[in-house]
Amino acid sequence: MEALDYHAEERRKAEFDAEEMKIVWAGSRQAYEISDRVARLVASDPVFRKDNRTMLSRKDLFKDTLRKAAHAWKRIIELRLSGLFFSCGMFIPAIKGQGNDEQQQKWLPMAYKMQIIGCYAQTELGHGSNVQGLETTATFDPETDEFVIHSPTLTSSKWWPGGLGKVSTHALVYARLITDGQDHGVHGFIVQLRSLDDHLPLPGITVGDIGMKFGSGAYNSMDNGVLRFDHVRIPRDQMLMGVSQVTREGKFMQSDVPRQLVYGTMVYVRQKIVADASCALSRAVCIATRYSVVRRQFGSHNGGPETQVIDYKTQQSRLFPLLASAYAFRFVGEWLKWLYTDVTQRLQASDFSTLPEVHACTAGLKSVTTSATADAIEECRKLCGGHGYLSSSGLPELFAVYVPACTYEGDNVVLLLQVARFLMKTVSQLGSGKKPVGTIAYMGRSEHLLQCRCEVERAEDWLKPNVILEAFEARAARMSVTCAKNLNNFPNQEEGFAQLATDLAEAAVAHVQLIIVSKFIEKLQQDIPGKGVKRQLEILFNVYALSLLHKHLGDFVASGCITPKQGALANEQLRLLYSQVRPNAIALVDAFNYTDHYLGSVLGRYDGNVYPKLYEEAWKDPLNETVVTDGYHEYIRPILKQHIRVARL
Amino acid sequence: MEALDYHAEERRKAEFDAEEMKIVWAGSRQAYEISDRVARLVASDPVFRKDNRTMLSRKDLFKDTLRKAAHAWKRIIELRLSGLFFSCGMFIPAIKGQGNDEQQQKWLPMAYKMQIIGCYAQTELGHGSNVQGLETTATFDPETDEFVIHSPTLTSSKWWPGGLGKVSTHALVYARLITDGQDHGVHGFIVQLRSLDDHLPLPGITVGDIGMKFGSGAYNSMDNGVLRFDHVRIPRDQMLMGVSQVTREGKFMQSDVPRQLVYGTMVYVRQKIVADASCALSRAVCIATRYSVVRRQFGSHNGGPETQVIDYKTQQSRLFPLLASAYAFRFVGEWLKWLYTDVTQRLQASDFSTLPEVHACTAGLKSVTTSATADAIEECRKLCGGHGYLSSSGLPELFAVYVPACTYEGDNVVLLLQVARFLMKTVSQLGSGKKPVGTIAYMGRSEHLLQCRCEVERAEDWLKPNVILEAFEARAARMSVTCAKNLNNFPNQEEGFAQLATDLAEAAVAHVQLIIVSKFIEKLQQDIPGKGVKRQLEILFNVYALSLLHKHLGDFVASGCITPKQGALANEQLRLLYSQVRPNAIALVDAFNYTDHYLGSVLGRYDGNVYPKLYEEAWKDPLNETVVTDGYHEYIRPILKQHIRVARL
Repeated sequence: MEALDYHAEERRKAEFDAEEMKIVWAGSRQAYEISDRVARLVASDPVFRKDNRTMLSRKDLFKDTLRKAAHAWKRIIELRLSGLFFSCGMFIPAIKGQGNDEQQQKWLPMAYKMQIIGCYAQTELGHGSNVQGLETTATFDPETDEFVIHSPTLTSSKWWPGGLGKVSTHALVYARLITDGQDHGVHGFIVQLRSLDDHLPLPGITVGDIGMKFGSGAYNSMDNGVLRFDHVRIPRDQMLMGVSQVTREGKFMQSDVPRQLVYGTMVYVRQKIVADASCALSRAVCIATRYSVVRRQFGSHNGGPETQVIDYKTQQSRLFPLLASAYAFRFVGEWLKWLYTDVTQRLQASDFSTLPEVHACTAGLKSVTTSATADAIEECRKLCGGHGYLSSSGLPELFAVYVPACTYEGDNVVLLLQVARFLMKTVSQLGSGKKPVGTIAYMGRSEHLLQCRCEVERAEDWLKPNVILEAFEARAARMSVTCAKNLNNFPNQEEGFAQLATDLAEAAVAHVQLIIVSKFIEKLQQDIPGKGVKRQLEILFNVYALSLLHKHLGDFVASGCITPKQGALANEQLRLLYSQVRPNAIALVDAFNYTDHYLGSVLGRYDGNVYPKLYEEAWKDPLNETVVTDGYHEYIRPILKQHIRVARL
Repeated sequence: MEALDYHAEERRKAEFDAEEMKIVWAGSRQAYEISDRVARLVASDPVFRKDNRTMLSRKDLFKDTLRKAAHAWKRIIELRLSGLFFSCGMFIPAIKGQGNDEQQQKWLPMAYKMQIIGCYAQTELGHGSNVQGLETTATFDPETDEFVIHSPTLTSSKWWPGGLGKVSTHALVYARLITDGQDHGVHGFIVQLRSLDDHLPLPGITVGDIGMKFGSGAYNSMDNGVLRFDHVRIPRDQMLMGVSQVTREGKFMQSDVPRQLVYGTMVYVRQKIVADASCALSRAVCIATRYSVVRRQFGSHNGGPETQVIDYKTQQSRLFPLLASAYAFRFVGEWLKWLYTDVTQRLQASDFSTLPEVHACTAGLKSVTTSATADAIEECRKLCGGHGYLSSSGLPELFAVYVPACTYEGDNVVLLLQVARFLMKTVSQLGSGKKPVGTIAYMGRSEHLLQCRCEVERAEDWLKPNVILEAFEARAARMSVTCAKNLNNFPNQEEGFAQLATDLAEAAVAHVQLIIVSKFIEKLQQDIPGKGVKRQLEILFNVYALSLLHKHLGDFVASGCITPKQGALANEQLRLLYSQVRPNAIALVDAFNYTDHYLGSVLGRYDGNVYPKLYEEAWKDPLNETVVTDGYHEYIRPILKQHIRVARL
């Protein structure tokens, strides 16, 4: 029970009001109370146990997921909560966003009540990010007033949609609309896949699961699917007609609804992904922090206990920037939620002025936060030493579940290049009198930023938010302006953009990191109650910003934003900051308020009672069901008992 | 069959003699022929099929491994090859290195013939890297002439040894030797765990598997084990007595065999790990390169095919440095093999002079190459887009199998700090007249390196090996000297070392990267036959060095080794180099000569026929055995058919 003492003592050390920090993390007292209640409900329900997931075969794992989903649905109705399961989550938003009133009235209630189960069938075997390259066709047949949905090639097979393989009865299929021999580009169609009586695929439909994926649990509990159409007919009114229409005569009509409206959904999805990043990252950090307190290694004096690994500077310099990132991503995610509301209101008022900036900002934040989080989870796993490699640490599973976020909803590199295009456009318009707004407003001060000098003289000067902000602004502005200049050396802008893509992506990262830094500063300017809470957040802010500065020192020094000497001072200050985080580390991860069930990690247990539980977990493995292993008589014994002369030794 | 054309055409593009490159990669014509023969033998043997591994339950997966191992053993005898299975591989080397003649004569033949199966039981549940902290005890009982092996605490349970859980009959157990109440530190003991008749654990032995690990196949096919002793007695002659002895009377005697001899084994193991790094890295790079040629995305003109993703600069700037790293690690690994032979000869002649340098060099190379390889495999997976997440890509499995290399045989950060200690010692002795040798020889020119200026004026100046070498030497020397100076600011050196650990680790990385760069240059100075082969290697060398320079630009610029302008020129040169690698990329990965069986990746197929095979693989998943999924009647149908009024929508 020694381990129990560790964490209790660590909690006593904290220099801030731990309860108030939980509210800061949750966003509000109400949000804290709701999430706390739901988490405890789930944790206490034996149906939701998940410690055995990694041991199940694929079939058993999938069935277990169905069982949980059905139970969750039941509980949701009993508790009068709202929620949806069995769905990749985009079926309904797409009908809402792209269906007309009639279609919404017909399909949404069935989907909400789960009388049908829908999935979102966009990507194809040979076509990922490039939606315009999809090959599936929807050809209008005016004789029968139907669309014929067809997969003309193997690469046009729908591939990846979650819930498609085994569960969905319907799919929202994206296909090239063809009327009268003319291709009108990609549109959405509601297609029934399986009979509602016996769940058998309908004629012309080939549907199945795409097979095993990364990890032993993770997405293997989901039926990502493959789908081919052999001239499947659907009524004309199953093309989503909110934006474009096909008339009874087969005439294609583009509606006057502005196309920009679809960006609203994209902003929604991406702000959700950023919020998820802070969740995944904080889970990993919570596990690594708690275990770093329990784990001891070297440094024993006179036979006393070894040193807690969290006390090593090498551990702190890897772990604490991730802890700070979790908070940074949380706050920028909160702000993105506000931005989504703001942009929605503007769109409704037909104000599209902020859209390019909002689009660049959400695309960039999606890219930077998910890449950083994926790397951070793996780093946290390594920070747990060998035991991080055990499934019972929870970290392999968390990594395998999380990494697709770097690829889905826009590949992270592709997204950075979109941000870069926006940056280059902004730079090119600088002289034009068009004033950059929002997250790109600093570019309006580029004249100053291109020549300003950082005034840091002593390490503690790096604690000033304004000093940090200016250094990040100067770095971002200079990198963008340098790229723009280099682009001008190419006779063809597109060729230049292709050649300089790597530099452009780096400039985009600099811009996005500046956004995160500036939103953290805005958070600190808010009224934050609770003894010592604000102080802790200031420390985390400084850790976040200065560790980024250290990581990207080349950018800052090479562009002349700071001197090598100032870089060394930042590093010195960082070391002092780590010592300030150290006594608060446990309380800072407690603030996430994760139940042991949610964390799913023996190493991250709230009580720190790691080793006895690791030992206990081991014996649950199916291999330990028998003392003498299955296969001994066939494969091991014959070798041990052989009397063959081994020729060469 | 379009894909088949891609690779054939790519192969025709190559500007060098592909067969000669295979020999360069293998190290010699003989090595090439042997590895080629073995690979084809394994690939053609149906028992070794591995495409179904990820779908098996833990028990079936383990049994499948036993089956393969038994078959391999049979084939090895039939083919008169040498080799060992069922063993973590350290049992025999340890007996060889630490047993006396008598013990070697008794135990080695049994182990070679597999009449016993041994594992290496060192790490404990609560003790990883710090061997001196182990808790298991071996207490001598002079009355019976036996040792009593005991696990006094839960944390002293042996934990992790490969082959321990289910297979091994014997273990080499590391335990604290206690005679007459005195603790003589950690020594090795041969302990029988299971009966050779029925495989049941012997009295006092608790043994089992430690449970699931990262990935769906990977190390789950191995029985890493847990082991506890309850006063287990073994004869005195089962303590390995090659280095120390306990006499019949219980007297402990340290032998006069120099302790340094054990470093020989360590150098051996670590050079093997570096060689493995180049294998794992090249596998991942081979898969990502081949699929990057097949995969197309965006950039279609007038309805033509989309652009091959390998033609994007963002893809090249992520992939080609990894391709270059594979070659760099291969060559440094080759050199390490030579170093091992050299140090073995010196040790036999009682020449211990090069040991500290050799130890630092192998520790550092183990750390840097394994960390880079683990990151690179995951990067290659991301470079394959969404499909890299499928088990059939082979990359999730490769990652899960590989990552423990960052932790085992010395945690990578701990190893860097050992290198740093050596660097600091070298700096402190600079004035003493003791001349640094081998990989640290450059420190002898530190006066020059601390003030030299890089003479690059045009991008092509960065192609000169000497220019690159001096920049890397200057960076490494300056970082070490700066650390040494900063250490002097601390009153207590140990405290300083702890505080500056992160900077010290970075200095160590700079030193190790210099070693890799300089060994690549030495390789280029050798006689390399084959049209265009040397030219290709020069390009890869430049890519390796300049991409490192770009990645660590902060080090180079902040320490004044190069100017920001020179950094930009390096980047410019790098872009040109990528264009030179591009037409040779497929032939450069073909040179690894991996069979499709060995690669285990649909994306990495030699013939590039990716999409039809992906489609085919999907249908093999157990979930596709039935059209209507198991669980439909219990969990899906009741929801679809419900007549409940949903309260809130």
